[in-house]
Amino acid sequence: MTDEAAPEREFVQSLARGLAVIRAFGAERPELSLSELATATGFSRAATRRFLHTLLALGYVRTDGRLFALTPRVLELGFSYLSSQELPELAQPHLEELSRALGESTSASVLDGPDIVYVARVPTHRIMRTAITIGTRFPAYATSMGRVLIAGLTDAARDGYLAALRPEALTSTTLTDPAALRKELDATRERGWAIVDQELEPGLRSVAAPLTRRGAVVGAVNVSTTASASTLERIRDEFVPALQATAAAISRDLELAGG
Amino acid sequence: MTDEAAPEREFVQSLARGLAVIRAFGAERPELSLSELATATGFSRAATRRFLHTLLALGYVRTDGRLFALTPRVLELGFSYLSSQELPELAQPHLEELSRALGESTSASVLDGPDIVYVARVPTHRIMRTAITIGTRFPAYATSMGRVLIAGLTDAARDGYLAALRPEALTSTTLTDPAALRKELDATRERGWAIVDQELEPGLRSVAAPLTRRGAVVGAVNVSTTASASTLERIRDEFVPALQATAAAISRDLELAGG
Repeated sequence: MTDEAAPEREFVQSLARGLAVIRAFGAERPELSLSELATATGFSRAATRRFLHTLLALGYVRTDGRLFALTPRVLELGFSYLSSQELPELAQPHLEELSRALGESTSASVLDGPDIVYVARVPTHRIMRTAITIGTRFPAYATSMGRVLIAGLTDAARDGYLAALRPEALTSTTLTDPAALRKELDATRERGWAIVDQELEPGLRSVAAPLTRRGAVVGAVNVSTTASASTLERIRDEFVPALQATAAAISRDLELAGG
Repeated sequence: MTDEAAPEREFVQSLARGLAVIRAFGAERPELSLSELATATGFSRAATRRFLHTLLALGYVRTDGRLFALTPRVLELGFSYLSSQELPELAQPHLEELSRALGESTSASVLDGPDIVYVARVPTHRIMRTAITIGTRFPAYATSMGRVLIAGLTDAARDGYLAALRPEALTSTTLTDPAALRKELDATRERGWAIVDQELEPGLRSVAAPLTRRGAVVGAVNVSTTASASTLERIRDEFVPALQATAAAISRDLELAGG
């Protein structure tokens, strides 16, 4: 079982399709009709109907007879992952302390393929809140947490990541040149933190530090702020020392937790 | 499609089984072998292997060749629900403020069948932390949030809930007598909040208030504390007014958000 590729006959298509039905729901469309779901998934009405009936019977979906919506039972699936991980629970209280001290949003994430995935987050009560929740994904190359996570890979893994990368200019300042990106990753590894200034979204600034366990980078924490609220000087002078202390405290807890 | 019951031929068993494989992972067993998963789910090794290969191919599971674990991609499933709901996002900043003001954990939950399900939570940094995360379920009758949620049902729905209920004495003080429970629900509706004193777990005290939208109870918020940290008097005099102000603020935000 060292071969991760599933042979065709081993692939259970109806499981893949049922999961796609769950994922068709979201912020933009909390309630969907059978037709809308069929359109969103690309499955036939008959197939969509079978998946919906199964999810209804299992309690993952509810209906008023016409529109369908997810139930909170779906959370059990996502939280099978969260409860299997120590990082989110260990990080949360430290992130809250850091957010309180700086008055800014803080987060923790892990690398999943080419993306970072948020596993913990403490948002601030601001009028302008970014639409980030646990589970949100961003391309690693354009985020501060992604930079420390990629900088923390082994040389071979980092080379593999960079070779496969097709970076897009998400803003006018996104670093997309492979050589420049590689240089920035070297600098990140050297200094132990990364700053990203409006490369993911205009107005958004973020600084991140790595979380380590037994010398390996296993996650990242960040402080995110806006260009209007925080100068780059303030981020370097005030945020970085506090962030590094938080990263060290979480890494210490991870070490103690063993696992 | 007014009939919610799925006819046998409409039920996609492999979807149900694949979801059961995801749920087999958790805090106690973040990494499982094929045999362990087959035992945990009750499926044959061959079937378990097909589901695992499918989840591997979809990126929901990873393996080192012998042990299997969930990947953060699983979060997308649970968060399809969270991002489809306004309540968790609207409640979070208010819960943080309340937790900061009282120095205690705060949460929000909704009713799902006979259970409450946590949809938002701000834990305090205590040595004794309860193992509650978003997605955690408890039987409604033994929790303060459950009491305000059941008290907020229509009379018919509440009667249906009570008729189906087989309450267990989870501690020596759990209210299990149907008549006493009904009386407590009436009192809860009357006073607008509920307190539960070590009925779910020894040492645990919690007080809850309902969240409303257009007059209907759509959720509950609570403050949870320990019997050693907070007397019942302190909970009534200090916690209840702050909790009610928080519940009112969230309900106002829910009203404004429309939806």
